[in-house]
Amino acid sequence: MDSWSSLAAGEQLVLESLFWSKAASRNELALRLRQSKSKANTVVAALIAQGLVAEVGHVLHGTGRPAEMLRISDTLGVLLAIDIGATSMSVAVLTPNMSILALHSEEVDVRDAQQGPTVVLARARTLALTLLERRGKKASDVLAIGIGVPGPVNMESAQLVNPPLMPGWGDFSIRDFMRDSFSAPVFVDNDMNIRAIGELRQLHRSVSNFLVVKVGTGIGCGIVCEGKIYRGATGSAGDVGHICVDINGPRCHCGNVGCVEAMAARPAVERLAQEAMERGDSEALQRHAGKEGALDLAAVGAASREGDVVANRIIQRSGMLVGQMLASVVNFFNPSHVFLTGSIVTIGPLFLAAVRQSIYQRSLALSTRNLHVQYTSLGDTGGITGAGVLAMQELLKSGRLRP
Amino acid sequence: MDSWSSLAAGEQLVLESLFWSKAASRNELALRLRQSKSKANTVVAALIAQGLVAEVGHVLHGTGRPAEMLRISDTLGVLLAIDIGATSMSVAVLTPNMSILALHSEEVDVRDAQQGPTVVLARARTLALTLLERRGKKASDVLAIGIGVPGPVNMESAQLVNPPLMPGWGDFSIRDFMRDSFSAPVFVDNDMNIRAIGELRQLHRSVSNFLVVKVGTGIGCGIVCEGKIYRGATGSAGDVGHICVDINGPRCHCGNVGCVEAMAARPAVERLAQEAMERGDSEALQRHAGKEGALDLAAVGAASREGDVVANRIIQRSGMLVGQMLASVVNFFNPSHVFLTGSIVTIGPLFLAAVRQSIYQRSLALSTRNLHVQYTSLGDTGGITGAGVLAMQELLKSGRLRP
Repeated sequence: MDSWSSLAAGEQLVLESLFWSKAASRNELALRLRQSKSKANTVVAALIAQGLVAEVGHVLHGTGRPAEMLRISDTLGVLLAIDIGATSMSVAVLTPNMSILALHSEEVDVRDAQQGPTVVLARARTLALTLLERRGKKASDVLAIGIGVPGPVNMESAQLVNPPLMPGWGDFSIRDFMRDSFSAPVFVDNDMNIRAIGELRQLHRSVSNFLVVKVGTGIGCGIVCEGKIYRGATGSAGDVGHICVDINGPRCHCGNVGCVEAMAARPAVERLAQEAMERGDSEALQRHAGKEGALDLAAVGAASREGDVVANRIIQRSGMLVGQMLASVVNFFNPSHVFLTGSIVTIGPLFLAAVRQSIYQRSLALSTRNLHVQYTSLGDTGGITGAGVLAMQELLKSGRLRP
Repeated sequence: MDSWSSLAAGEQLVLESLFWSKAASRNELALRLRQSKSKANTVVAALIAQGLVAEVGHVLHGTGRPAEMLRISDTLGVLLAIDIGATSMSVAVLTPNMSILALHSEEVDVRDAQQGPTVVLARARTLALTLLERRGKKASDVLAIGIGVPGPVNMESAQLVNPPLMPGWGDFSIRDFMRDSFSAPVFVDNDMNIRAIGELRQLHRSVSNFLVVKVGTGIGCGIVCEGKIYRGATGSAGDVGHICVDINGPRCHCGNVGCVEAMAARPAVERLAQEAMERGDSEALQRHAGKEGALDLAAVGAASREGDVVANRIIQRSGMLVGQMLASVVNFFNPSHVFLTGSIVTIGPLFLAAVRQSIYQRSLALSTRNLHVQYTSLGDTGGITGAGVLAMQELLKSGRLRP
């Protein structure tokens, strides 16, 4: 059962190992891949000769000789990462090691049937070409393209399947559209799955069962199960926004009542703040309101940072409800980590504290004894980095990395 | 990468394939294991010569020659299966193909600190020896022992880890205790995990992502994820009984409020029926009550089958609440099947109907489009069969099946 029977197979394993660990010495590679040092050295030499792997400096381990560190060569080309959300889009150019070379974000509304995939993707393509040019790169320098979208995806066809939020995107060929400008392979996945895969690489695959939960305009969840992205039977796993947290709660656009998204996501937080301000409950909210007297999340955050009791209560309520939903999920799934991200999460430490309190109060002790609830390590760049990791991972799997 | 490099490796794969598919022809084996017919024939011949595999009759496929069907030989020995629940215990003797040769069930209360593991396991051992004798078997005929317990298990040590329900069982060596009477290897897992693995074999591993949910004295869930039992980061995955279904609900023994177990499991159903009867709401419940005027689940079931409105309302309410909990889980996990079992589930078709209605109403369309909610195929013997499948699976993995 020697999977190193061919040089190519050994090369692929070394490249994947370097990618997921970010960098490693020859000895670490041999240990990790359970091969002799000489075998590992032979494969590494071949990869360096082909320009696929580069030596990037020394690391001192104990009293031994400093070890030469290796990683995937940054001269190979670049990756394009596109993170499409419900109300915004980010486009970035990344190195094969996930350093961001150029990044642009702007508002876009994929829920608007007037726009549809051709308008949004044409804009993404234009942004990508502009960013590439800014870094002196051409379309032909792109090794692979990774795209995250807010809906269920058929990974093989790289198409959305019955997306509830995105009119016109169902069965639209994103690959064909991008092919007009780029010959590189295109990989598409759900926006929460790419955040989960990005976090998985950030953790060097050291954590096997975790969730990445985003609380912004909507509430979504990416699931890593036994070290792999879990998609569910029909690709909709992680759709936690419509879990009920109050059987007497308000009606959600999905038709049900008490969905956590309807009660705790950005629109609910803004609406509650607006109502409190209009009742005259908070001088701070009034002060931070826009010209027309409209309150957005930034205003709620500003009031909260000033210690405004009303703003704080609204943020805590949102955190408590999200925590209540997560308590159900934690009881069922028993993850070791829950990573939080999104515009509401990062408004201040109150939200995280409320989520934690709610989870620890509502989950069983057995499930929370070793549970960590914390911010994602990638923060705002989680989507872009995740799209890059998706592109690089699929490229490595396909064995088409050779220049 | 030829895992058939040794005969032994090939033999193990053929045995595992026969076990999970229950029976197969030589051609089916070759196809399934991606080997040439001649290679498969060689391995099968060796297994038959060793008495590990037996020919069990012909099956006609289309117009071709009838195919000789193979399965693991029933003459190898027997398996012991012990299914310990919170309030009952079943012990059985099974063939290697999971036919039940002898079975005995009785009440036992593992929550009673006076009993503890030595009393319960001594009773299980006595029952096992009696059942073996009844079928003319000896302790030395036992190939392996599978045990299911209502708590979190460390599979390697075969011990319970901080079981909330079972005083005295934490870190007690079940293996050492059984070794006094049996030399066969002992495998222990959570009672819901064994039900899930039993169902997985019943389905010939044709379904990859499903749940087995038991509603009885408590509410628990076994999870199959990508074809394997999923245990979670610390072994407590599937602990769904304490998911909150009503933030204003009654207090549960766990300290929280509105847990589905406190509101919908057997004690809640019996209590609600008792209260209704005492209010004089139901003549049928009164008629079925015991001598002391006490109502148990059987009485509620009898009243329900007579069409008693009060009994039916109580059962439907329980089903609705369980369905509400499952809706959260389905949104998160997106399984293709939810299999239901347990004393409440099997009280009549009303419960299943209420669960279904509740799940389909509360889950997102994307998650339920291909969702099947149905009874387990194994029913009451799910625990015993699951414990047998656990024992046989682990025995095959260990390669110690050879007589």
